[in-house]
Amino acid sequence: MERIDDLGVKNLKLIQNTDLFCFGTDAVLLSSFATVKPKTTVVDLCSGNGIIPVLLSGKTRAEKIIGVEIQKESFDLAQRSAELNNISDRVSFINCDAKEIKNYLPSGCADVITCNPPYMSGGWGFISPSDKKAIARHEIAINIDDVAKIAAYLLKCGGYFCMVHRAERLCDVICSMRKYKIEPKRIRFVHSYQNSAPKLFLIEGMSGARAAAKILEPLVIYNDNGDYTDEVKRLYKGEN
Amino acid sequence: MERIDDLGVKNLKLIQNTDLFCFGTDAVLLSSFATVKPKTTVVDLCSGNGIIPVLLSGKTRAEKIIGVEIQKESFDLAQRSAELNNISDRVSFINCDAKEIKNYLPSGCADVITCNPPYMSGGWGFISPSDKKAIARHEIAINIDDVAKIAAYLLKCGGYFCMVHRAERLCDVICSMRKYKIEPKRIRFVHSYQNSAPKLFLIEGMSGARAAAKILEPLVIYNDNGDYTDEVKRLYKGEN
Repeated sequence: MERIDDLGVKNLKLIQNTDLFCFGTDAVLLSSFATVKPKTTVVDLCSGNGIIPVLLSGKTRAEKIIGVEIQKESFDLAQRSAELNNISDRVSFINCDAKEIKNYLPSGCADVITCNPPYMSGGWGFISPSDKKAIARHEIAINIDDVAKIAAYLLKCGGYFCMVHRAERLCDVICSMRKYKIEPKRIRFVHSYQNSAPKLFLIEGMSGARAAAKILEPLVIYNDNGDYTDEVKRLYKGEN
Repeated sequence: MERIDDLGVKNLKLIQNTDLFCFGTDAVLLSSFATVKPKTTVVDLCSGNGIIPVLLSGKTRAEKIIGVEIQKESFDLAQRSAELNNISDRVSFINCDAKEIKNYLPSGCADVITCNPPYMSGGWGFISPSDKKAIARHEIAINIDDVAKIAAYLLKCGGYFCMVHRAERLCDVICSMRKYKIEPKRIRFVHSYQNSAPKLFLIEGMSGARAAAKILEPLVIYNDNGDYTDEVKRLYKGEN
């Protein structure tokens, strides 16, 4: 079923289809966490229905935001959301396997790479590769190592790679980034409640940088009463 | 200047010399964080004045706890603390460069390795290698990669390697552990205050384990009023 959601940021809207993967808080957090300076080019990998490019168009002054999505149905939604929001001059999408991005974009073209990738590790033999939600959730079409390799190809030296992932995959993400010379510089853990174990983390690496990561203060989603914290309310509104 | 400190755990005492490196909260946290089962053998690398072996003798039922320390003066203090506490049957020390441990201990002899290593990265040309505090603080005699390599040599398959380190060195620690097939399984960040950025982290890896680290809830040292939190008070008393 298709629906149009108001994103709460500069009147931006997003077309979603509940048969496909719908965006969550993690996309909102990632789009706020990424360091995107004015007049830059951003490439969003595993873009899905285009939530991150659409949010970044409102939250930043990036000149060009390109989403890459393997699934035709999600890509179509993303294109239509860009048109609906009249942002097609800045936001565009490529419908391809990100591992084939060399056929579409030159090396070193991006100042920033963002990615909200499939979270679940591979080896899930019982999942049908034709399951459209599974491709967005499980490492069927792409894994962490692939994403880091593609980011390293696309990034300028000194460019940023930003990712959100499940806490238990922290070591996989760090080691894959380093393997491709993207040095983690900022890490922020996302906790549902204060003093709970984090379920997610945000990480930003810099291509070619020297070692030393800053672990930031915890990002807490809910107050004890179950409401969003003030910080998360601000992030949803596109404020930092 | 020499002094005897009461550790607050089972009447254990520690002889310290203020000209050398004196123990801090990090040693207390590490000795509580490590998974030490009854009747096991623990090797503590970079043992200093022996604080971790002495604390582990009170907090655990390990059969044998061996501290390895390169500096003769610190080693002497550690030996004397073991005698003072009448724990020399369980706690002993080796005065050697940990990188030469093969000359003293066989491969696979340890169930657990603990290490509170020098925190500051190398390349500090202005520090005299004869400075005894500097050797305990800076990576002059040993670095993270050395420690992980030595741990991998000493550990049984399935054994635990526990370390405390500065937050900014997280990626170095994770990548060195993986390099030597010690998979990080538990990580806990240590925050001075709730919602502050963590300064330290505790990490436990298992030799030969499969990937997936649990990031635990934050460990907070001080309440807003500047007192130790209840958890830290318990850890100082040797309770978990």
